[in-house]
Amino acid sequence: MLTNEISFRVRYGETDQMGVVYHGNYPQYLEMGRISWLRALDLSYKEMEAKGVMLPVVSLEMKFIKPALFDDLITVKTMLKNEPQVRIEFTYEVTNQNNEILLKANTVLAFMDSRKKRPIKCPDYIMEKLIF
Amino acid sequence: MLTNEISFRVRYGETDQMGVVYHGNYPQYLEMGRISWLRALDLSYKEMEAKGVMLPVVSLEMKFIKPALFDDLITVKTMLKNEPQVRIEFTYEVTNQNNEILLKANTVLAFMDSRKKRPIKCPDYIMEKLIF
Amino acid sequence: MLTNEISFRVRYGETDQMGVVYHGNYPQYLEMGRISWLRALDLSYKEMEAKGVMLPVVSLEMKFIKPALFDDLITVKTMLKNEPQVRIEFTYEVTNQNNEILLKANTVLAFMDSRKKRPIKCPDYIMEKLIF
Amino acid sequence: MLTNEISFRVRYGETDQMGVVYHGNYPQYLEMGRISWLRALDLSYKEMEAKGVMLPVVSLEMKFIKPALFDDLITVKTMLKNEPQVRIEFTYEVTNQNNEILLKANTVLAFMDSRKKRPIKCPDYIMEKLIF
Repeated sequence: MLTNEISFRVRYGETDQMGVVYHGNYPQYLEMGRISWLRALDLSYKEMEAKGVMLPVVSLEMKFIKPALFDDLITVKTMLKNEPQVRIEFTYEVTNQNNEILLKANTVLAFMDSRKKRPIKCPDYIMEKLIF
Repeated sequence: MLTNEISFRVRYGETDQMGVVYHGNYPQYLEMGRISWLRALDLSYKEMEAKGVMLPVVSLEMKFIKPALFDDLITVKTMLKNEPQVRIEFTYEVTNQNNEILLKANTVLAFMDSRKKRPIKCPDYIMEKLIF
Repeated sequence: MLTNEISFRVRYGETDQMGVVYHGNYPQYLEMGRISWLRALDLSYKEMEAKGVMLPVVSLEMKFIKPALFDDLITVKTMLKNEPQVRIEFTYEVTNQNNEILLKANTVLAFMDSRKKRPIKCPDYIMEKLIF
Repeated sequence: MLTNEISFRVRYGETDQMGVVYHGNYPQYLEMGRISWLRALDLSYKEMEAKGVMLPVVSLEMKFIKPALFDDLITVKTMLKNEPQVRIEFTYEVTNQNNEILLKANTVLAFMDSRKKRPIKCPDYIMEKLIF
């Protein structure tokens, strides 16, 4: 339940002249993973922002294990690491259609009041969706 | 005076697996040209937006003549096409360090009141900078 | 049969500070449309490239009608415009989940021998898939 | 000597709807830092690749301290961390025109023979440029 998977194909424009996905495109993939993780809990990041809660990325770590290729069908597995407080931490595993691990990653995001630009605790309507 | 040039190097991440700049990156290059064209008239697009004027792109045409390569030092030449009204039209020529033409392009942008989301005429403080 | 549709969600990183999809991201969307169009004919662009045929974009035109927003479920409709020769031309219509037209576009691509870097005619195995 | 700085302006298309530079664009900035670091040693990454040496990113860590805004003049400071072997490690500091620190980052890259796709030691012509 606290793990989500989303799959999509690598776009041509995401490759670089090494013939593989440019490493700088993975943060977008991880974000698709987070948005999908939230959606699976019936939470819309779009609505969260509309209600005044932002989730900027505070830190990001990626280990590149194997390259993704154009047209690969890749899967981003997003896992909540622990109970969110003012921050929320996810780990990720990106695999290809052959189930090979391409990337392991970790992100920390901060809950922020978008008007006051101040950190806040994880909103209750999110906490209620998570069973600890 | 109504023509501006800006030069910069192609980034690695802007190439694709054909070994050349991905065609979808040129709209960013054209935008750098426009921002630089405005700056040369002592106009800041950042301030324009802060004052409530947006300039969304209404149409864009690009003809790809020769590819740009990683690390090429390319130049975007931006030319105002005619006197702006509610719209402003630019033509562009992108060349490389050997003065080879890589791209010819054209964009039409609309002046918009960003609060009312409505088209407006080209603001006076811009018109004053342009001598027709 | 010569028309294809592909749908996907707008990524957060594809927006800009106007709060809408950055106009420079649409060439990627159109490319996803073309790849999907080929796939529907049982043609893989990846295999085409592996066999030595490239399809660089020669020209691209976009008319921006309405902005796409983050998380919108957009659809790219890709239509072959006429019988391919050394070039292949597509028109596109991008719509959102409310069936509003966001973009109309046109691209011309050239068939190229990737080793000789020379234009070639549309390969027979593609022509056979198209009934004119 | 083993530290390099490169400055450039934030592009409009690099912002997202939070109104700041999308976090996923920083890997490109770091790469510009590395390329500039190499150039200052009279080394061209383009030539390195042409001679059969690739430098894929093995790991990347970023800590986001303060956001960059559109049109900010930012500086990427790139520092070699220690003597390269089969890997080369850099740390980075990204600052804005007010000398505020925006990002601290670290990357590890691997020297690779691009034909054999195998790790190699840092080439001698690079080692000679570095005085340890």
